Amino acid sequence: MIRKLRRLPKIITKVYEDEFYHQPGTVPGTIFIDADAPPPIIFLIDYNQTNFIHEQIATPEECVPYLEMESVSWVDVQGLGCQDILQRLGNVFELHPLVLEDIVNVPERPKTEDYEDQLLFIARMVVPKERTCGFYSEQVSLILGKNYLLTVQEEPEHDCFEEVRSRIEKNKGTIRKQGADYLAYALLDAIIDGFFPVLELYGERIEELEEEVIVKPTPQTLQNIYQIRRELLQLRRAIWPQRDAINSLIRDAPDLISEEVRIYLRDCYDHTVQVMDMVETYRELASGLMDVYLSAVSNKMNEIMKVLTVVSTIFIPLTFVAGIYGMNFNTEKSPYNMPELNWYWGYPLCWAVMLAIAFGLLFFFWRRGWLQNSVVIKRN
Amino acid sequence: MIRKLRRLPKIITKVYEDEFYHQPGTVPGTIFIDADAPPPIIFLIDYNQTNFIHEQIATPEECVPYLEMESVSWVDVQGLGCQDILQRLGNVFELHPLVLEDIVNVPERPKTEDYEDQLLFIARMVVPKERTCGFYSEQVSLILGKNYLLTVQEEPEHDCFEEVRSRIEKNKGTIRKQGADYLAYALLDAIIDGFFPVLELYGERIEELEEEVIVKPTPQTLQNIYQIRRELLQLRRAIWPQRDAINSLIRDAPDLISEEVRIYLRDCYDHTVQVMDMVETYRELASGLMDVYLSAVSNKMNEIMKVLTVVSTIFIPLTFVAGIYGMNFNTEKSPYNMPELNWYWGYPLCWAVMLAIAFGLLFFFWRRGWLQNSVVIKRN
Amino acid sequence: MIRKLRRLPKIITKVYEDEFYHQPGTVPGTIFIDADAPPPIIFLIDYNQTNFIHEQIATPEECVPYLEMESVSWVDVQGLGCQDILQRLGNVFELHPLVLEDIVNVPERPKTEDYEDQLLFIARMVVPKERTCGFYSEQVSLILGKNYLLTVQEEPEHDCFEEVRSRIEKNKGTIRKQGADYLAYALLDAIIDGFFPVLELYGERIEELEEEVIVKPTPQTLQNIYQIRRELLQLRRAIWPQRDAINSLIRDAPDLISEEVRIYLRDCYDHTVQVMDMVETYRELASGLMDVYLSAVSNKMNEIMKVLTVVSTIFIPLTFVAGIYGMNFNTEKSPYNMPELNWYWGYPLCWAVMLAIAFGLLFFFWRRGWLQNSVVIKRN
Amino acid sequence: MIRKLRRLPKIITKVYEDEFYHQPGTVPGTIFIDADAPPPIIFLIDYNQTNFIHEQIATPEECVPYLEMESVSWVDVQGLGCQDILQRLGNVFELHPLVLEDIVNVPERPKTEDYEDQLLFIARMVVPKERTCGFYSEQVSLILGKNYLLTVQEEPEHDCFEEVRSRIEKNKGTIRKQGADYLAYALLDAIIDGFFPVLELYGERIEELEEEVIVKPTPQTLQNIYQIRRELLQLRRAIWPQRDAINSLIRDAPDLISEEVRIYLRDCYDHTVQVMDMVETYRELASGLMDVYLSAVSNKMNEIMKVLTVVSTIFIPLTFVAGIYGMNFNTEKSPYNMPELNWYWGYPLCWAVMLAIAFGLLFFFWRRGWLQNSVVIKRN
Amino acid sequence: MIRKLRRLPKIITKVYEDEFYHQPGTVPGTIFIDADAPPPIIFLIDYNQTNFIHEQIATPEECVPYLEMESVSWVDVQGLGCQDILQRLGNVFELHPLVLEDIVNVPERPKTEDYEDQLLFIARMVVPKERTCGFYSEQVSLILGKNYLLTVQEEPEHDCFEEVRSRIEKNKGTIRKQGADYLAYALLDAIIDGFFPVLELYGERIEELEEEVIVKPTPQTLQNIYQIRRELLQLRRAIWPQRDAINSLIRDAPDLISEEVRIYLRDCYDHTVQVMDMVETYRELASGLMDVYLSAVSNKMNEIMKVLTVVSTIFIPLTFVAGIYGMNFNTEKSPYNMPELNWYWGYPLCWAVMLAIAFGLLFFFWRRGWLQNSVVIKRN
Repeated sequence: MIRKLRRLPKIITKVYEDEFYHQPGTVPGTIFIDADAPPPIIFLIDYNQTNFIHEQIATPEECVPYLEMESVSWVDVQGLGCQDILQRLGNVFELHPLVLEDIVNVPERPKTEDYEDQLLFIARMVVPKERTCGFYSEQVSLILGKNYLLTVQEEPEHDCFEEVRSRIEKNKGTIRKQGADYLAYALLDAIIDGFFPVLELYGERIEELEEEVIVKPTPQTLQNIYQIRRELLQLRRAIWPQRDAINSLIRDAPDLISEEVRIYLRDCYDHTVQVMDMVETYRELASGLMDVYLSAVSNKMNEIMKVLTVVSTIFIPLTFVAGIYGMNFNTEKSPYNMPELNWYWGYPLCWAVMLAIAFGLLFFFWRRGWLQNSVVIKRN
Repeated sequence: MIRKLRRLPKIITKVYEDEFYHQPGTVPGTIFIDADAPPPIIFLIDYNQTNFIHEQIATPEECVPYLEMESVSWVDVQGLGCQDILQRLGNVFELHPLVLEDIVNVPERPKTEDYEDQLLFIARMVVPKERTCGFYSEQVSLILGKNYLLTVQEEPEHDCFEEVRSRIEKNKGTIRKQGADYLAYALLDAIIDGFFPVLELYGERIEELEEEVIVKPTPQTLQNIYQIRRELLQLRRAIWPQRDAINSLIRDAPDLISEEVRIYLRDCYDHTVQVMDMVETYRELASGLMDVYLSAVSNKMNEIMKVLTVVSTIFIPLTFVAGIYGMNFNTEKSPYNMPELNWYWGYPLCWAVMLAIAFGLLFFFWRRGWLQNSVVIKRN
Repeated sequence: MIRKLRRLPKIITKVYEDEFYHQPGTVPGTIFIDADAPPPIIFLIDYNQTNFIHEQIATPEECVPYLEMESVSWVDVQGLGCQDILQRLGNVFELHPLVLEDIVNVPERPKTEDYEDQLLFIARMVVPKERTCGFYSEQVSLILGKNYLLTVQEEPEHDCFEEVRSRIEKNKGTIRKQGADYLAYALLDAIIDGFFPVLELYGERIEELEEEVIVKPTPQTLQNIYQIRRELLQLRRAIWPQRDAINSLIRDAPDLISEEVRIYLRDCYDHTVQVMDMVETYRELASGLMDVYLSAVSNKMNEIMKVLTVVSTIFIPLTFVAGIYGMNFNTEKSPYNMPELNWYWGYPLCWAVMLAIAFGLLFFFWRRGWLQNSVVIKRN
Repeated sequence: MIRKLRRLPKIITKVYEDEFYHQPGTVPGTIFIDADAPPPIIFLIDYNQTNFIHEQIATPEECVPYLEMESVSWVDVQGLGCQDILQRLGNVFELHPLVLEDIVNVPERPKTEDYEDQLLFIARMVVPKERTCGFYSEQVSLILGKNYLLTVQEEPEHDCFEEVRSRIEKNKGTIRKQGADYLAYALLDAIIDGFFPVLELYGERIEELEEEVIVKPTPQTLQNIYQIRRELLQLRRAIWPQRDAINSLIRDAPDLISEEVRIYLRDCYDHTVQVMDMVETYRELASGLMDVYLSAVSNKMNEIMKVLTVVSTIFIPLTFVAGIYGMNFNTEKSPYNMPELNWYWGYPLCWAVMLAIAFGLLFFFWRRGWLQNSVVIKRN
Repeated sequence: MIRKLRRLPKIITKVYEDEFYHQPGTVPGTIFIDADAPPPIIFLIDYNQTNFIHEQIATPEECVPYLEMESVSWVDVQGLGCQDILQRLGNVFELHPLVLEDIVNVPERPKTEDYEDQLLFIARMVVPKERTCGFYSEQVSLILGKNYLLTVQEEPEHDCFEEVRSRIEKNKGTIRKQGADYLAYALLDAIIDGFFPVLELYGERIEELEEEVIVKPTPQTLQNIYQIRRELLQLRRAIWPQRDAINSLIRDAPDLISEEVRIYLRDCYDHTVQVMDMVETYRELASGLMDVYLSAVSNKMNEIMKVLTVVSTIFIPLTFVAGIYGMNFNTEKSPYNMPELNWYWGYPLCWAVMLAIAFGLLFFFWRRGWLQNSVVIKRN
């Protein structure tokens, strides 16, 4: 029912990284392959307390024997670029057509859905970019079954599951003793914890901008604030529905999740709320920064106006005085015609008057506090 | 109870495309025909797994034999311009007077209403305009009965059901195997998916405005931002009640909708929430743009003030100096009266003083950072 | 418990048309007569399917025989200016003292209250003013009994029940076949529908202001926006509690209201929500207008600054040049003292320099885009 | 657990009139006496349908015999300045330690608490100041028992119970026939109604500020708006929890309150909601005023800029022209050196040029609408 | 699952004092020791009605015998700097791994969690800084068992439990007669009451800023307002979840808390709400201050513009007049060439004209109210 017609234009792409538009009215359950999507790579991890297998497999069918065993099988598909493989994947795991659509036609809003013997969890994973401030964002779909977990990622790069894989391999903690539900929890927890490093970057950038806004506000600063607000909006959009989804996991208590894992999920829920808190706090700080920027620009204008006013109001009267004695009234025609020009102390007196005016005005400005240099600001 | 007296004036018309005002106190259930409304055209699509009929019919009564058959009948009325036909339509489908009123006296707020053996769903459909940014918006009323679906559109142009019609005709997907409730779902889904292309246009326009606001803010930009905010307000007003209506379809579980279709409706509900999310995000971006615009205008004013201040404060003191030596004090009357005029190096010295003043001030401005050209902004 | 001491001062009067202040601690159920209130006029309409009586009666007691008949009696009291009549009205209809207080000591907040065999509904009715934008607002109290309806209006002018009266008289629709509960519904519906013409006026006025704000913002515009916001605040205050009141009518299902009328009330509720929607939308538009106004004022300031800057920065350097050659250095004392004055081409050269400066600056301003006339704005 | 260490500094004192800070960790139920608190005065009113006693008593123990009688006893304590008396009061009425703490360690948030055979209601009473806009605010605690009511006020001045006392004394209304619960209602009602005169004062002041903001905005205006917003914030803080407290009185239905009084409390609740409505409305008006103020200041700046621009841009070019003909080029050295100076019509021509420039610019400004006096604003 | 990688940068550190980022995917229940964390100091207080022991113990195991006795044991751990001790602490008290993680990997969001025979309460304690405005904030975890209470603080300095310790030691109030649940309440109450002195400091600082903003707004003022808003945001983040946590303590009624203590907790809840109220009020005041600041800056700009405009528009025309009579038109060539220069009263007349212009303009400005000194503001 959704056809990937074309990607949104470039800037918006950054905000809604992979928002497509939907050709209204298409058959529900139809899956559409984006031409740019990378071809899927399939990894299989199968383990129990004693054994551990980790291999890349070529076709979805290869994991059937593992699914039939008692051990926990984690099938991790990375990339959405091949309709045939995805369709066969759907057959192997007996996915409902709508589930397959939700997995493939990204982006879907994070949510939990319960299909009798399967549980679908759509999550959004963020990974910080190395150099610049910013993050990659991709959808991860988790399908939890009796003793298997299928995860589907949009792209092979940037995932935050490496630590979990090593815990399984090195048999760290209790993960090898637990079932597929615990594995699902461990991955979810890794996804949520993955928001913290991204948020830290924003904390640093907001700090830099605080400095910049007060000390040297430029139009570029304005743009950076706007950019940060836009990206925090995107983070907020990613984390809010995730909270609801995890909450419904805990409350609605599907059979596939054991009581013990539910306690762990409660912890994961707490972290989600903490992420939300931080996002909201940063959003408030960023929008406070906008106010400060506006005020800083006004202050700068005040500075400029003060310089103009001081210089103009001092020299304009002086120029007037000079203008007076530049007039050509004929002093010979009348004793009232500019007798000053012929006085012995005329010129020094004229200077005296002008200096008096200048210093009078300077005193007036000093009283008003316009001569202090208000640019120096100490940070406490 | 509602009489279409006259349309709202031209600009508002764009926002509330067809908001009428109601003569208070008229009989409930009375229907009013807008003089400008196009005359109704009636299409009948009747199908089951094997047969398919698609024809335009002249009178509502012609569809009676189809309604009595087991096959699914979809009667699609396009246009509200004839009281007689609409009244007869009401008789053929045994509509409650209030239902008929809701259908005809547009605009009604989207809602679900359950009338024993009929289900009324009022929806709002948007279709993007080809050239400009903007959209047509019209009301679609769906009346779902045992094995028929009556849809009433305001106008014959711009609907987003073409894909569904072709799915029925070409027997694509499972639509021919399902009942009238599935058809209702398919149309609702097409209506909701129809919001995405419209939203994409706004995404593009907001992007353009972001560029414009930073690089070259004009009063026209301001107007465009206001215009976008107004149109997003309208979109929001269209999608919010739709969510509640779909939700009440799923929760209140009327008999006419099968369990299977309800799963599909859940998917449709998810898309509605996604549309709402996007509308809210765009609204936040647009209102952030307003802040940026105000700041950009302030920055521009700063630029102008800087130029004025630099030029004025340099030349006003120089003009004063020139004014001084333009005075006509009689040098012969006293050795103190402007002896400089008679010095050998008087004129070059005067220039030296003026250049010193000019460069001193330029240095002062350069230190303050007022000479840099702050217009060049790089987008990252 | 509420004593009408004195009316609020004039401007506020417009917002809270008849807000009084209450002498704290007075006996509950006491009624206070405002000196300016018009004396009550009582109309009686009594009807059943066959008969119809419409007459003005002098005393409340005259309607007693009608109340005892099976037919529906509508007693419409207009005006609150006579304590004696109101008290006797209370006796005739056996009103609870608090009900009488709510009716008389206007304004009361819209609400529904259920008193065993009576139902009190306090509503607020708005009627548009003819010439100017604005509206009259008065309280209407409906007391619904077994087969009678008592309505009490604040003033005899401006009601929106005329259409309902004519429907009863001319036996239009089903109103003569229904009971007093249907009559109550019909009046409520007329009250709610009465908000639409008022809102249309605000739609028009906001449209005019949109035009004005962009094209020619004056301080008067600012005041008009503030005025509209204030009046929309009043409308909002009138319609919000009305929605709750109607909702509690539908949900709490008092015995006096039949199942059929409840369906009609649902329709009335939908219209109330629609009114609220429109009020909120207009409020958002009006508050957006304030932003646009501020920006427009900033733009105008920019225009003014540009003109000042262009003229000043062109002529100030030129004046300086002219000032230079107005100096009186004695050319005879030294060959370096302003030899230009004696050059053959001195004056034309001086003009050439000045023109070069002027055109150079003009070119600079043209490059910055300050010479374009940015006032011309095309509306799309 | 709360120790009155010292009062907040002076301005804040006005906002949180008697907010103290709490030494964390002290024993719960400990009461602290503020050194400035007035010593308690105790009044006893005891009445039934036939008898009435109103006297000031010296010690709490004196009211014991009255409490044992069937008649209603109202003990009204005014002032919190003596630990001994308050402690003995607690003993006489068998108050829970936390109740005594809530009564004495003001301010407590308004609330209802149900202690088996006693009901605690903490209320906040406001009384308008006579001269200035503003109000006194103090806590009133009501403890309702079987046939007694204990009220504790912070100070002996400013209460709004006078009317209730006179109703009891003069046997007005039904108060003498009712129990202690009705008395509690009557006092609560007086407290709530006491907000209306205060709100009226704010209505008047907002009206004055509306006038001032448009006609003559000064920095003082700004301060007044801020002041009003702060005081409305305080009123809001006083009335919001009161609503919840009354609501919980009605809903949770403690045994001590009869069914009949509950109907009266519903009325009281309606007034509370009305007060909240008015406070919110005034807050919106006051925050709208801030916007208007900012715009008015911008408009004034525009006016100033216009005057500066008109005068500067007219006279600067003229001064340039005058400067030209003040140059001293030697007309004898060349026919091109300022021949104008020797023309017969030179001077009049020069004036003509200057007048042409001046009128040309005036026309340009007139076309731009800068010459109109935009200060005159008519209020409609 | 959370690894303390590194602290956030310096400014943010002030806001989220000890927010770390989490290496996604680590084993749940793992605890991480911050290198800077102080080593834990353990205090044991054991008491019943007759006995009292208060000693510092070296290892967690030393408190085992006390835990087995009937008396109430309060183990207070201060500092999180040693993994071994914390792990052994977990063993002694049989803590769930997630509980230990919540305690050690600070900061955790305040919350209540019920683990069968233990109750975890995470709280956030604030302590005002002595000199400057600001506060220390640290996490306190309370684990309540049958007859013991374990508290874990982040650091040994700054706690607000001193008063409680002295109440136990001196047997003040009923604390020695009550169980561990009452002790937990007493500490919680001390934590909540600890917010009041911090809030008082902010009240004072806001008051100072109010003064400053009106009288002498500088860029530093702006920064201070922003700083206060940021710190109030942090306080809000600390108190909001605490309210929910206390509420869930009261409502969900775990077995470990007696009915009597629940009444005391209700009182504690009231104080929490009061703190929230004050925080919200201060936040509104601080954000109102930002508006006032912007207006004050605009007013100052107006002042500067007025001075510039008054001086410029008076002297520019005068300078023009002086410029006129500085022109060198040859009076001998024509009677029309500046005959004024040769008039007998020429120069005085010229002055008369200039004075007339100056006073005319001054009158014009006086009428506009530009000559009043608007800086003097009286505080009421």
